[in-house]
Amino acid sequence: MSAGEVNNKIAETSSNGEALTVTIIGVGLIGGSMALILKEKGFAKHIIGVEANKENAQKALELKIVDEILPLYQAVMKANIIVLAVPVSVCEQLLPQILDNIDSQVVIDTGSTKKGITDAVKNHPKRGRFVATHPMWGTEYSGPQAATRDAFARKATVVCNVAQSDTNAVQMAEDLYKTLGMYIVHMDAEDHDVHVAYVSHISHITSFALANTVLEKEKEEDAIFELASAGFESTVRLAKSNPAMWVPIFMQNRENVLDVLNEHISQLRKFKACLEKENTDYLKELIENANKIRKIIK
Amino acid sequence: MSAGEVNNKIAETSSNGEALTVTIIGVGLIGGSMALILKEKGFAKHIIGVEANKENAQKALELKIVDEILPLYQAVMKANIIVLAVPVSVCEQLLPQILDNIDSQVVIDTGSTKKGITDAVKNHPKRGRFVATHPMWGTEYSGPQAATRDAFARKATVVCNVAQSDTNAVQMAEDLYKTLGMYIVHMDAEDHDVHVAYVSHISHITSFALANTVLEKEKEEDAIFELASAGFESTVRLAKSNPAMWVPIFMQNRENVLDVLNEHISQLRKFKACLEKENTDYLKELIENANKIRKIIK
Repeated sequence: MSAGEVNNKIAETSSNGEALTVTIIGVGLIGGSMALILKEKGFAKHIIGVEANKENAQKALELKIVDEILPLYQAVMKANIIVLAVPVSVCEQLLPQILDNIDSQVVIDTGSTKKGITDAVKNHPKRGRFVATHPMWGTEYSGPQAATRDAFARKATVVCNVAQSDTNAVQMAEDLYKTLGMYIVHMDAEDHDVHVAYVSHISHITSFALANTVLEKEKEEDAIFELASAGFESTVRLAKSNPAMWVPIFMQNRENVLDVLNEHISQLRKFKACLEKENTDYLKELIENANKIRKIIK
Repeated sequence: MSAGEVNNKIAETSSNGEALTVTIIGVGLIGGSMALILKEKGFAKHIIGVEANKENAQKALELKIVDEILPLYQAVMKANIIVLAVPVSVCEQLLPQILDNIDSQVVIDTGSTKKGITDAVKNHPKRGRFVATHPMWGTEYSGPQAATRDAFARKATVVCNVAQSDTNAVQMAEDLYKTLGMYIVHMDAEDHDVHVAYVSHISHITSFALANTVLEKEKEEDAIFELASAGFESTVRLAKSNPAMWVPIFMQNRENVLDVLNEHISQLRKFKACLEKENTDYLKELIENANKIRKIIK
C-alpha cells in the first residue's frame, strides 16, 4: 500500500466514524482529558499513553485514562493519530523525531504557541501529516488526576497553517476536536501567537505577579488572606499554574508577551496617575472604558 | 422609655429571634441580596427600601425584594436596623445625618473602605448605634436585578472598631450577618483598609487595566476575542464592575491602593526583565513562588 493509499484509508476510517487507535504523548490535564472523552465518545477504540513521569504513567493506568503505556516509538507505530500534549519546548524537540518515524499517521500538537513548532518542521518531508492545533481550554491544575470529562466543550480550537497539512490529516484532526465538542477557528501561526498573548498569556503573568504581590505582604502580616474574597480568587487562581508548562510558553512567545506586558504596565500606570493626582474624572473614564469588555465576555 | 431601655428592648428582640423591620438604603446587588435572604430566613418581618434611582426602586418592588419604598427619614424612623448599601462616598455623607435623626436604632454600613466612615462619625453622640461592617462578597454585577439568595454564605464579614459601638448594636449586626451564613472577623478600620487593598481592590485595578489592554488591541484586530478562554474570563470579569461603586472606593483607599499598585507594577517588571533577558531560571523561580498561593486559595 502506498503512503497515499494509507492516507486515504485512514481518512475513510475517520470519516466513516470507525474507532481509531490514539496515542497520547503526555498524559496530564490536556492529554488525559482528551483520552477520557475520545474513548467515551467512541472516537478511539484504544488509547496508548506515553508518559516520561513514571508516577503519572501509573496513575493514568489506574484511573483508566489509557489502555496501555508504551515507549514513544512503539506507541507512535501502533497509532492512527498521535497527540502531543507536552510542554511546548518538549513538543518542538519531539515532533521532528516523530515525523522522521511515521508512515501515514496523523500527528497533532496541543501547544499554546504555534510559530515555533510550525517553523521547526516547515521543510520536513512529512510536514503534511502534522496539524498544528491549540484547543483553547485549560485549568490551573496539572497531571492525570486533573483530567476531566468536563473539558473542552463549547471552546475554540485554533488550527494553524492548514495549507501546510494534508487535507485528510486536517479532516481527522478537526473530527477529533469536534468529538470533544469544540469549534474550529483557522488562523495563521503568527497571528495565533499574537492573539493568545492577549487573551491567555498576559492573564497568567498578571495572576503570577498578583500572587507574588500579596505573598510579599503576607511575610509581614499573617491575617491578610482571611479576607480573600471571590474577586481575589478569580484573578489569582491562574497563579497556581505549572511552571513546567508556562516557562516554555512565555519563552517561545516572548516578543508578543513583552509587547502586551508593556501595554499592560502602561495601562496600570494610568490608574496610578489617577490615584496620585486624585483625578476622579479620568479614573471614571478608565473604568467605563474597561466596562466595554461586557460586549466580549458575558 | 429611655434610650438605654429601648436599646435593651431591641437587643432582646434580636436575640429572642423575633423578626425585625429592616431598612435597606440602596437596593442594589448587596442591599437587595440581603433583603431577600433576611426575609426568607425570618430575620426581617418587614423590609423598607430607600432608593434614589426611581427605576431601581420600581424594580425592587416588582421583584419583591422590598415590601415598600419610603423616603429616607420615614424609612429610618420605622426601622429596628438600618443597612447602608450605597457607594462609600454616599455612605460617608448619609451616615452622620442618619445618626442625627435616630433614637436607638442600629445602623450598619457595608462599604469596602472603613477608615473614612469611622473617622466621619468618630465623635458623633450616637456613634454607639453604628456598627462599621464589610461583608466580603460581591460580583461584577449591580442593581436590584443582580440581587440573589445565593449571596454571602461562608464568606467573612469584617466588623471594625467594635469598641466604639454599643454591645447590643454589635450583637444585632453580627446576628444579621450570621443569618446570611457569614462568619465574623474583628479588625481595626485602618488594618481592614490595608488588607482589602491587597485582597480585593488591586484585583479590580488589574482587571480594569487588563480589559483596557486588550480593548486597545481590539481596535486593530476584530477577531482577537474569538479565542478568549476560561483563564481570560476569570481574570477580566471584574472589569465589568460599576464605576459608581469603585471610583469612591479607590479614592477613599488611595494611599493603600497606591502602595499595592506600586508593588504589583514592580512584580510585573520582574517578569518583564526575565523575558527581556531570557532568564528562564528566574522566571521559573517567580512562578514557583506564585504557586505558593495554593496554600491560601483552594
